[in-house]
Amino acid sequence: MAADAVTGIGAMRALLAPLRHRDKTIGLVPTMGALHAGHARLIERARIDCDCVVVSIFVNPLQFDRKDDLDRYPRALDADLALCTSRGVDFAFAPTAAEMYPKAPVCTVDPGRVAEHCCGRYRPRHFTGVATVVLKLLDIVQPDVAYFGEKDAQQLAVIRRLVSDFNVPVTVIGVPTVREADGLALSSRNRHLSPAERRLAPSLYDALTDAASHVAAGMTDAEDVKRHAATRIPTDERVRLEYLEVVDPDDFQPVERIAGPVVIAGAMWVGGTRLIDNVRSSPRTTS
Amino acid sequence: MAADAVTGIGAMRALLAPLRHRDKTIGLVPTMGALHAGHARLIERARIDCDCVVVSIFVNPLQFDRKDDLDRYPRALDADLALCTSRGVDFAFAPTAAEMYPKAPVCTVDPGRVAEHCCGRYRPRHFTGVATVVLKLLDIVQPDVAYFGEKDAQQLAVIRRLVSDFNVPVTVIGVPTVREADGLALSSRNRHLSPAERRLAPSLYDALTDAASHVAAGMTDAEDVKRHAATRIPTDERVRLEYLEVVDPDDFQPVERIAGPVVIAGAMWVGGTRLIDNVRSSPRTTS
Repeated sequence: MAADAVTGIGAMRALLAPLRHRDKTIGLVPTMGALHAGHARLIERARIDCDCVVVSIFVNPLQFDRKDDLDRYPRALDADLALCTSRGVDFAFAPTAAEMYPKAPVCTVDPGRVAEHCCGRYRPRHFTGVATVVLKLLDIVQPDVAYFGEKDAQQLAVIRRLVSDFNVPVTVIGVPTVREADGLALSSRNRHLSPAERRLAPSLYDALTDAASHVAAGMTDAEDVKRHAATRIPTDERVRLEYLEVVDPDDFQPVERIAGPVVIAGAMWVGGTRLIDNVRSSPRTTS
Repeated sequence: MAADAVTGIGAMRALLAPLRHRDKTIGLVPTMGALHAGHARLIERARIDCDCVVVSIFVNPLQFDRKDDLDRYPRALDADLALCTSRGVDFAFAPTAAEMYPKAPVCTVDPGRVAEHCCGRYRPRHFTGVATVVLKLLDIVQPDVAYFGEKDAQQLAVIRRLVSDFNVPVTVIGVPTVREADGLALSSRNRHLSPAERRLAPSLYDALTDAASHVAAGMTDAEDVKRHAATRIPTDERVRLEYLEVVDPDDFQPVERIAGPVVIAGAMWVGGTRLIDNVRSSPRTTS
């Protein structure tokens, strides 16, 4: 089946109802478009698991804290639809902002403490916007399974909490980050990087993996871990580390003494582009 | 079919799935129990509309701003189940707090400006708790239609907004308030009133109907309307008017100049019992 771009909420529901009625499983891959190999990995996983794969493509204004970032966010609908078709996606759901928000929303999701730190601290109301639009998409598509990239680890933690706290009848699957050969996590924003900026970009992942290896080796003081890791960020006027934080995987609360599994998350500006990444680690247990 | 008390979320879903699969329509009447003739009216309406009627009975701790109010809220599960059986309810869903909140919720619904005024002003986070538990119940039962009493008009406004803003696939029906012969709106809290307090209680509805008639007669200044209405509240040490407000029906924002349909809402303490009520009105159009 070729990918169709469905733009209406009612049309999307009408297309899915007969499949649901025939007990077909539906998988949703929510995206903001500008699809890359990381998204393709999510789609592949959904294609394996589910009878019907829906990819939503919607640049959600509610989750952008800065208008220039919203305006600058890459759009590539034709290429996205071609990728969806080539990967066997059944439906690409690409609503307009007017379809998703006919009125400015009054009720929103408060993501609570999961959004307090890391990106939530630097992007006010970003996760309110993420959680609200994801809840809307889940209510529109009503998938059995929804797929999210682990690259956006705090987003994934918010969504897991949302689904659990609201009893949303969906299984959430996190899919590992896809990286370039030099470690840079794939991101739609990478296309904004100049060649020189591109060469600086992998240092975020370098710092995170350095931190992860210190945690695994038994360093328990998160401040020590962060101090070591930060030395991997090059001194360059184009580079600014926004945060590098050691948090618990469920609620993204900062950890001071590391005694179990943690997420080490960071955000770094390279020129005008903000990159995020994260790794997991835990103290290596000795028998 | 006799009413069963279902306590588990998984059990509730398992009972409803085969009905949904056979295209049976499901109606949900969310309650906090201590059922009275107002609830019975909701159930009757659901029984007419739907193949399967679910009544949820759950005193939701998240929506109580005062612990003493939560402790004092009437419970009458046996009588509630008997009423459900006598009215042809298919399932009474009566989960424990531990079933509904295995962990304290982190994600909640922010009801936004609909909750700013009236009861929302006097009961901090009350509507956050209401909206969150209603969203959970809708996600558990997945009804085609959900029924709410118009007595709790601000709650109904919050829920309509929630459903619209989050694209929840349910139709919300408001059912008119059931009143005693002297006008007092039926409420589970009325059973707390002493005989003397009971005689004072109808004055809230008196004040609201007075306000409604002034609006209908062309009084456009909301302050004038409220001043007139307040004179209907008896001067008695047991009685305290908490608020009497003229608001727009959709977002419950205060109206200063009345030019169209309004809700006139009030809350009044009689002894230790807080009563709420509301009426609709609009300027009578002359041709």
